Amino acid sequence: MNLGSDNLAGASPKIMAALLKAAEGTQSPYGQDDFTKAAAAALNEAFEAKAEIFFVATGTAANALALAQITRPWSAIFCHETAHINEAEAGAPEGLSGGAKIVGVSGAAGKIDPEALVAATARFRKGWQPHVQPAALSLSQVSECGTLYQRDEIRTLTGFAHAHGLKVHMDGARFANGLVALGCTPAEMSWKAGVDVLCLGATKDGALACEAIMFFDPALAHEFTWRIKRAGHVLSKGRLLGAQMLAWLDQDHWLDLARHANAMAALLKAGLGSHDGVEFPWPVEANEIFVWLHRALAERLRQANVTYAAWPPLGTPFGARSPAEGTFARFVTSFATTPDMVKYIVTAAKAP
Amino acid sequence: MNLGSDNLAGASPKIMAALLKAAEGTQSPYGQDDFTKAAAAALNEAFEAKAEIFFVATGTAANALALAQITRPWSAIFCHETAHINEAEAGAPEGLSGGAKIVGVSGAAGKIDPEALVAATARFRKGWQPHVQPAALSLSQVSECGTLYQRDEIRTLTGFAHAHGLKVHMDGARFANGLVALGCTPAEMSWKAGVDVLCLGATKDGALACEAIMFFDPALAHEFTWRIKRAGHVLSKGRLLGAQMLAWLDQDHWLDLARHANAMAALLKAGLGSHDGVEFPWPVEANEIFVWLHRALAERLRQANVTYAAWPPLGTPFGARSPAEGTFARFVTSFATTPDMVKYIVTAAKAP
Amino acid sequence: MNLGSDNLAGASPKIMAALLKAAEGTQSPYGQDDFTKAAAAALNEAFEAKAEIFFVATGTAANALALAQITRPWSAIFCHETAHINEAEAGAPEGLSGGAKIVGVSGAAGKIDPEALVAATARFRKGWQPHVQPAALSLSQVSECGTLYQRDEIRTLTGFAHAHGLKVHMDGARFANGLVALGCTPAEMSWKAGVDVLCLGATKDGALACEAIMFFDPALAHEFTWRIKRAGHVLSKGRLLGAQMLAWLDQDHWLDLARHANAMAALLKAGLGSHDGVEFPWPVEANEIFVWLHRALAERLRQANVTYAAWPPLGTPFGARSPAEGTFARFVTSFATTPDMVKYIVTAAKAP
Amino acid sequence: MNLGSDNLAGASPKIMAALLKAAEGTQSPYGQDDFTKAAAAALNEAFEAKAEIFFVATGTAANALALAQITRPWSAIFCHETAHINEAEAGAPEGLSGGAKIVGVSGAAGKIDPEALVAATARFRKGWQPHVQPAALSLSQVSECGTLYQRDEIRTLTGFAHAHGLKVHMDGARFANGLVALGCTPAEMSWKAGVDVLCLGATKDGALACEAIMFFDPALAHEFTWRIKRAGHVLSKGRLLGAQMLAWLDQDHWLDLARHANAMAALLKAGLGSHDGVEFPWPVEANEIFVWLHRALAERLRQANVTYAAWPPLGTPFGARSPAEGTFARFVTSFATTPDMVKYIVTAAKAP
Repeated sequence: MNLGSDNLAGASPKIMAALLKAAEGTQSPYGQDDFTKAAAAALNEAFEAKAEIFFVATGTAANALALAQITRPWSAIFCHETAHINEAEAGAPEGLSGGAKIVGVSGAAGKIDPEALVAATARFRKGWQPHVQPAALSLSQVSECGTLYQRDEIRTLTGFAHAHGLKVHMDGARFANGLVALGCTPAEMSWKAGVDVLCLGATKDGALACEAIMFFDPALAHEFTWRIKRAGHVLSKGRLLGAQMLAWLDQDHWLDLARHANAMAALLKAGLGSHDGVEFPWPVEANEIFVWLHRALAERLRQANVTYAAWPPLGTPFGARSPAEGTFARFVTSFATTPDMVKYIVTAAKAP
Repeated sequence: MNLGSDNLAGASPKIMAALLKAAEGTQSPYGQDDFTKAAAAALNEAFEAKAEIFFVATGTAANALALAQITRPWSAIFCHETAHINEAEAGAPEGLSGGAKIVGVSGAAGKIDPEALVAATARFRKGWQPHVQPAALSLSQVSECGTLYQRDEIRTLTGFAHAHGLKVHMDGARFANGLVALGCTPAEMSWKAGVDVLCLGATKDGALACEAIMFFDPALAHEFTWRIKRAGHVLSKGRLLGAQMLAWLDQDHWLDLARHANAMAALLKAGLGSHDGVEFPWPVEANEIFVWLHRALAERLRQANVTYAAWPPLGTPFGARSPAEGTFARFVTSFATTPDMVKYIVTAAKAP
Repeated sequence: MNLGSDNLAGASPKIMAALLKAAEGTQSPYGQDDFTKAAAAALNEAFEAKAEIFFVATGTAANALALAQITRPWSAIFCHETAHINEAEAGAPEGLSGGAKIVGVSGAAGKIDPEALVAATARFRKGWQPHVQPAALSLSQVSECGTLYQRDEIRTLTGFAHAHGLKVHMDGARFANGLVALGCTPAEMSWKAGVDVLCLGATKDGALACEAIMFFDPALAHEFTWRIKRAGHVLSKGRLLGAQMLAWLDQDHWLDLARHANAMAALLKAGLGSHDGVEFPWPVEANEIFVWLHRALAERLRQANVTYAAWPPLGTPFGARSPAEGTFARFVTSFATTPDMVKYIVTAAKAP
Repeated sequence: MNLGSDNLAGASPKIMAALLKAAEGTQSPYGQDDFTKAAAAALNEAFEAKAEIFFVATGTAANALALAQITRPWSAIFCHETAHINEAEAGAPEGLSGGAKIVGVSGAAGKIDPEALVAATARFRKGWQPHVQPAALSLSQVSECGTLYQRDEIRTLTGFAHAHGLKVHMDGARFANGLVALGCTPAEMSWKAGVDVLCLGATKDGALACEAIMFFDPALAHEFTWRIKRAGHVLSKGRLLGAQMLAWLDQDHWLDLARHANAMAALLKAGLGSHDGVEFPWPVEANEIFVWLHRALAERLRQANVTYAAWPPLGTPFGARSPAEGTFARFVTSFATTPDMVKYIVTAAKAP
């Protein structure tokens, strides 16, 4: 049993059934198919928006291409120092933007500290030739620590960004998980909170491979069609993406899947939390649980074949402990996690 | 009825059934899943090879990344002037290679003329600083004119290439169609004929989105894993690609699909060829039919709702004719084309 | 004696004297020095313009950076097929533009044929995703064949360009030679004729290393300051460039140098033309002489230690001749060429 | 009087005299001239090396091109967080390398702390696809804080680097100032200490514009000739660079110039240090003086028209002070600084 990530799961049966049906018959290629068009319309309806929308197969592509679109090669992009775009995309944003500079900003629990952002942007003098120029702020909702920005926290950061000429990107790989946790509307957690371009991930929330790039101001999407084409990100049979997105949105399927994943995370957190030898550095607010496991407990999980992601303890007090004392772990629940699985893990972890 | 391209069709039921099944259960992410590993092994078996193999979702990505891998930014890449990499990928090879130069080479019926290749490469002086340096030859099998290089033709070109220090790339978007037409083994049409890296397309031959990049010399794949990652081309749930490829190869499904498409093309060619008012500039050797349609015949097809791709008549005598006389058209048959569809078209085209 | 290029000469004494003086004392760095500011003002006065002006040390940098500025990575740039940016800059425009596509256009004697330009641009469908998008026209004045566009020829091409949304770049590596030959004002051969950005070369006309990039519409220069900085083209002690340019422009020194070079070319052409065994494919209109030399004559020059550039006979009838018959040669005169040198060559070439 | 940087000075008379002479007569272009060849030989002699050597006109170009050469686009480059390549080149290394990632490492007084380097490199897992891959270490000698790495400090860092597969780059914009301060040979401060590629700056030490890139292992320079050409960094009249370098090296002129600059710095430091209201955060080891100036003293300098660079007080205790209390300043002496100038500043700074 492996709960190291939510991308270890497959896809929801509803989405796969839709895909199976979409694979029949003739459709226009390159994203001009009926499914893609309907998916874009459905997204705009769900977000109460008139966004320009593009679909790609990976979150790395979505983030890197969106960031490239709102910056120039001599731009600085500000994000939390643990952000996926900074740490886990092998330099894709740098590569696809022509060499823009990612600047990591500090902040507790994976969330950018507004004062640190002010300080970070102040280091680059506007209009000064030797300095790269601040151009974008990237927020991860859910953050890499599994935490959430509250809506007013988002607005504080985007307000500062816009006042200083930065466009705002949101890495929404787990947007749905955050959304159901906050209990607000998609619009309220994105454009109404000051997000200019959202990378909305369906993949981790039950799709097989589908990410939407939503430019809430269509002017920002100028010539984006060539940017994605020349990066090789326009699918020949675009229905693959459109059909997944349509089924994902249909009758709030995306929210149901996310709610389930979050509920399983809460259950697992509660279960593990009842044991000795566990410590949680950050609140569990969506579907990710970061937890320090005492050696004995970790050993019991190993013997029960429970797998998780060993995680670098950056920003936690656990980095100072000896590896012999225990392990810092990430568990991520998904649409496919069952109460029985959670029960199995919690039971296995329990001291005899 | 639209036969403008073979990417208008969906996916074969066998492949979709496999995908449905693959979407269940837990798998490692980022191409480390069982399906992807098995697909790579199956490809190597089919090709009698020990290639390093990577899977991506689009042909544009496959071609551009493979070419980037075997060149430097100051390289020249030689291909037929009509090649997809030169004409229809919005500059993706230039973009992902850091600005390498694509040099179009002439030749009848979409195939590079060996003498023209010699002349084209000779224009760039080896070792001379102001000149980009010849580094790669790209062959399209099937060509953009629907024609085939015979095996000895491939060997002639690759022999020249290797003797002059060029690596050889094959754009095999319709490799299977070419293969069954030539009646040789996959190895004979690729590495045994001098191909260093093959982009093998399953998408146009019945898959939904799956392309393999095969480096027959594993040393050529050095650090390629980062090249594709930072281009955003590593799928989170890699099983999407692996499962398609496995099903495509299983029990020669790929060859059956291609044989069917080719047979439908032959049927359509024969049918149209029996009418007045049609002219074929090039032989029909795989699943593409290029044909000049007299105005009256084109009008009958239009009234019967038969759609095809209007094609630029470059390299044909038809460019000199007035648009009022007729239309230059491309029909492409696919795994999903039926004899009834062909019959319908042929009948519709017939003069009353 | 080597007349293979005008960059074999050093620099004019007047320019060097100015440089010597400029090397004294304190000046602001990075192009904020008094010399650079004065040079920009002097250029604007000479061109009756209000251009945004930048100075760099090489023509390759000037061309590539200017073209990058008026294009996007998915752009097509049209130039004569023999143009320096296409043939002799090792792919610099592709590299610094992020991979834009250079499209060679045919035309007699190194000059773009307007109909060929129309046909070349028409191959790329506007707004169509698979096609790179036409964005710039690049004219070389003087052309690579040593010929000149007349002012109405420039206007015809730039008129077409602007009507089709292309910006116009002029590679003016030998602008001064062309200017004195046409006998018009700098403005008339540039912005009044429809040129949007001019790369004005002083290096080949008596400077040591100095090229100006002039954006006649300042809006085109938006953020160009970072483009050149991050390409490493902002000199720490910018006075090196500013002082050369100031001296070059002072009291029409640039025109005097160019007139002299042109006069020497005319003299050499006349002298060689009086011999048997020479053929000129193109008129000699500035300071370059392209000439086919019969073997015997070439041998006499060799024995007299006269060196020239052996030139590829593309676009001439000489390519069909055996190398044993003779040589296709380029002579370029410069500010430093003397009548005695010309006399020596002409005499040496003469049959005994 | 402005001592904000050593690039405010012009060029040494000896170098200018050599340049004047070099501007006469015919020379091969593009770095094939006699001066450039002799300069390369002289450099190799001075460094007891057989390096492959290239000359460019700016330090930004030298650093960015050298780093691009020893990395791939998916590489991480480690340098001190204050390094010029990280802070003051507008992203040139990112741009010319295709998007490599610059990772700032901490350390007191502008020098990389070995333990911090170990920690920084450890964050990137070798062979792991989502991580950029450590490839280069860049050392600035003199550092951005005006301090020096002792030879054993260099060897400690380069030893770690080589053991972990990193190539070592040295930004030697003020190499000569460091060299005379350490009192060792050029070889001892470069390749014998583990430096693989040195960017040796002459510009700040009395030249007008000349930087050498020295690959001590010629294999590292493979195809570098095209890298610099396509970046626009090959001068048409290469003698401009070669002649400066030759004169700079001749009879230890470079060392004399650097010794003078360092001596002036020591004089200025001693003078200012005798006043109240000054604090030096770091030792003055070469030709740069960083000093906190009390408001009153700063005001006296302002009234005496003494200019320096206001500097961000990063890594010092001065950042915590109110701007009303005083100013953090950088003074840089050069070959052109005279004892009288120093005396004038010291006197002006003195309390009445």
